[in-house]
Amino acid sequence: MSEFFDRHRPMLDAAVEALRAREFWTPFPEVPSGKIYGETAKEDGAAAFAALCGQPFSIPGHPEESRLGREESPFGLQLGITYPAASAPALIAASQGAADALAAARIEDRVGVCLEALVRLNRISFLIGNATMHTTGQAFAMAFQAGGPHAQDRGLEAVALAYAEMTRFAGTARWEKPQGKAQPIVLEKHWSVIPVGISLAIGCNTFPTWNSYSGLFASLAAGNPVIVKPHPAAILPLALTVRVLREVLAEAGLPANAVLLAVDQPGAEITKTLATDPAIRLIDYTGSGAFGDWLRSNAMALLFSEEAGVNTVTLAATDDFDGMCANLAFSLALYSGQMCTAPQNIYIPKGGIPTDQGHKTFDQVAQALAGAIDALLSDPARAAGICGAIANPATLERVAAARASGRIIRDSAPLGEGRTATPLLLALNDGDAACQQECFGPIAYLIAVEDADTGIARASDLARQKGAITAALYDTDEARISRAVAAFARAGVNLSINLTGNIFVNQSAAFSDFHVTGANPAGNASMTDTAFVASRFRRAMWRRPAAA
Amino acid sequence: MSEFFDRHRPMLDAAVEALRAREFWTPFPEVPSGKIYGETAKEDGAAAFAALCGQPFSIPGHPEESRLGREESPFGLQLGITYPAASAPALIAASQGAADALAAARIEDRVGVCLEALVRLNRISFLIGNATMHTTGQAFAMAFQAGGPHAQDRGLEAVALAYAEMTRFAGTARWEKPQGKAQPIVLEKHWSVIPVGISLAIGCNTFPTWNSYSGLFASLAAGNPVIVKPHPAAILPLALTVRVLREVLAEAGLPANAVLLAVDQPGAEITKTLATDPAIRLIDYTGSGAFGDWLRSNAMALLFSEEAGVNTVTLAATDDFDGMCANLAFSLALYSGQMCTAPQNIYIPKGGIPTDQGHKTFDQVAQALAGAIDALLSDPARAAGICGAIANPATLERVAAARASGRIIRDSAPLGEGRTATPLLLALNDGDAACQQECFGPIAYLIAVEDADTGIARASDLARQKGAITAALYDTDEARISRAVAAFARAGVNLSINLTGNIFVNQSAAFSDFHVTGANPAGNASMTDTAFVASRFRRAMWRRPAAA
Repeated sequence: MSEFFDRHRPMLDAAVEALRAREFWTPFPEVPSGKIYGETAKEDGAAAFAALCGQPFSIPGHPEESRLGREESPFGLQLGITYPAASAPALIAASQGAADALAAARIEDRVGVCLEALVRLNRISFLIGNATMHTTGQAFAMAFQAGGPHAQDRGLEAVALAYAEMTRFAGTARWEKPQGKAQPIVLEKHWSVIPVGISLAIGCNTFPTWNSYSGLFASLAAGNPVIVKPHPAAILPLALTVRVLREVLAEAGLPANAVLLAVDQPGAEITKTLATDPAIRLIDYTGSGAFGDWLRSNAMALLFSEEAGVNTVTLAATDDFDGMCANLAFSLALYSGQMCTAPQNIYIPKGGIPTDQGHKTFDQVAQALAGAIDALLSDPARAAGICGAIANPATLERVAAARASGRIIRDSAPLGEGRTATPLLLALNDGDAACQQECFGPIAYLIAVEDADTGIARASDLARQKGAITAALYDTDEARISRAVAAFARAGVNLSINLTGNIFVNQSAAFSDFHVTGANPAGNASMTDTAFVASRFRRAMWRRPAAA
Repeated sequence: MSEFFDRHRPMLDAAVEALRAREFWTPFPEVPSGKIYGETAKEDGAAAFAALCGQPFSIPGHPEESRLGREESPFGLQLGITYPAASAPALIAASQGAADALAAARIEDRVGVCLEALVRLNRISFLIGNATMHTTGQAFAMAFQAGGPHAQDRGLEAVALAYAEMTRFAGTARWEKPQGKAQPIVLEKHWSVIPVGISLAIGCNTFPTWNSYSGLFASLAAGNPVIVKPHPAAILPLALTVRVLREVLAEAGLPANAVLLAVDQPGAEITKTLATDPAIRLIDYTGSGAFGDWLRSNAMALLFSEEAGVNTVTLAATDDFDGMCANLAFSLALYSGQMCTAPQNIYIPKGGIPTDQGHKTFDQVAQALAGAIDALLSDPARAAGICGAIANPATLERVAAARASGRIIRDSAPLGEGRTATPLLLALNDGDAACQQECFGPIAYLIAVEDADTGIARASDLARQKGAITAALYDTDEARISRAVAAFARAGVNLSINLTGNIFVNQSAAFSDFHVTGANPAGNASMTDTAFVASRFRRAMWRRPAAA
């Protein structure tokens, strides 16, 4: 049973070391290349996806009371896939049935299952990429990366940290207490890892695997059965994940029901019923703050959440005006602003900023940003490859409604194929209400503030009040940069400074960036810090006098 | 400012290693000996305590709107000490005023303050011992150990683990991402530790320092100001602690108000007002399950708790009948059963057990236990030194009421001095209601069960339902011992097997035993596992392109 663990031990050890060093590392290549994934990988992935469409999705041995599933691709395709569905009590009973065997397995066996499953998921990254594309609206290249290798990185990171934590302290000890001139007291002590209970992973529409893998794999490694509850519009990527995990569990002699899929449909969600069942002891949740509040008020389980926030950029000065505008244009356009890390509010001194091209007024900066977006999206194929499609029709309505909330600098427009929208840029005055909350989607506000320090203050205050996952700053004044570093740290936001070229504020790299600090209302789940894994298990001891 | 850290670095390093190895280790000797603590330490401690009585207790610079304090020793003395008291809003404002400077301090500076304070507290262990004795009712030797060195051990353990956790990942990194044939992307990244917010430590009457130090020191090391809210009957040990901490903070150039004392009086407690203030982000609580439930329902803060439970002993067989009875007699008599680790329910097969003295019937076992207690307490001075006094008058009422709940095997009786009660032993039948909940104090039930496996099942089931911190088993059948190990681990209870001689189920040693597993209703605060420290801080990053 420890074959999987032994096979992947070098990868595990490297992951644990990478977590410590926080340098760049990944075993899962992000380039969707045939040279890496096999010459026919691209075609094979597309064919495998096509073969799933219009068919019942098979998960051998999974509880099944009915078949549900009505996924529609934001690019227009009806997936026509149905999944085995069961009631919350049936799923919990099946999960409980798997709990004892999973808890009794050795740490190495569970960790080995997780590692093998991640490697197998990596191999089907092209299929996962297609599944992610047609459920989230991400363009293929992004869907491959975020749904495949980057999600696998996050899963591996969680497994590695859970493993490090479960083995952090000695598992046995000889405890010898001196008694002066008398014989010492000698006890032998033994500790075992005790799982907490059933874990519920509530997935989101936009990043079904990337946002779910950390909690799913951390809980499973620690011995907790996991019920995976996908967003009803983005089931397939997680259904594939569940199927792979169940296969590996069974091969390892562990109960496949240690991982279950909880499928439901819009208007008949079973999330609340599951989340409030006393058997559910851990919840990983990505979604709205409103439902996060509901979970905090109604669920007994320990909650790890990623919720809404308002990400900001503050423009103070730059020595690469074109590079700054191009970089921000990409950050705003990428997946049409539907990333939890996408910027929304851009604070610009009303008097403008100094740049390598001389002083630029507020309007000049605004026009340059609009122009950079136009240039980026001028080629239709490239535009489609960056913006992708809009996952949720409500986002289009939000864009339409937002047009009246400020002075339009750049209007949003559809692209060729599917449900699409390019970035809407609006100018506001400091204090305007529209930018004080998250407007999820391709909506950005350019806010005229008194000066750069005011922008930093507005951005960091808003992060503290409403939450934020990312912040960006462009500046050339090192003293002000230091003040900003302190202000954003106090607000619990990760800050990116002067990014230009092929690295963007939206990007959060596993093994290096802690995604979500946990220190503001955007969520308490930091992927992956120790707090994220350490509460998923407990230790119980037995001790007795040591044999002489 | 790092002088304290440098001075105590060897102790810190040794503590971190001891935590990993879980072997016996302590820098704070538990023996109240003049050879260790100074020839006049005993007299000096008694004199210092006497000098405090009848006086206003001075905490320089502490918020003070009034003076409160009406402590009465369970041994009869009126302490007559008043403490500076302030309203909850005033305390929170003072705490907030200290927060930024504490957060801005280096990890090493805060950890250094904690280490120096623990060493200074160790030096006044005789004073702490007297203060603990006359607020808790513990006999002096126990008050010295549990209130002094053992509590200091728990504090050091928490500081060491918090330090290890805060420095676990690199604080800076050069992140270099390959870009094929193009130049790599190179970012410099920097992380800082962000405290969570104000921490509230709610102390208990029976172990004011031992149960409070872990949370207090872990929070402070992580940069969170701490408001220490003692039980109104046991203020002095924590007031001394707060004073020492404030002195050391001030010497380190940090705000003394980073540690505050929240004094109140019975009937006018400010605990609820403090606990529900949104500024309070962490609560460490030791006390009843009822108030624990109230905190869970009403406080927004992250809660670490130690609550009620029913600790059990299961007697299956023994090859040292006298040793077993003597060991259990001590566990039942020690501090009159007022330890959170004291056994209450003793399950005995109704047909009796095999022993090295031949078969013993249920009644013979019961009488032998009663006889062992009588023998242990036959000398009045020794009895007083073991039983101490009863902290809370309600406990005496509970003992009186319990007399009707079963067949009396050994009656409780007062000792000479103060408010005292020796163990009450009652025989019950399996299924009787009296033993299904915690009866805090010197009350033990001997429960006749079908057989030893039934006893193990009853004991572990009750732990799962009502919570338990300790369990004990006496057995000679290795197969049954293995079954018991698994059953108690599943119930989340630490199990002690076949203890005889000078080691008792009640004892929980820092650096080795995790006190409270967190895996049953007796509490979620495991002292000290990683989950206990890792949620007390967060990390924020800033990153920028690396200089060429």
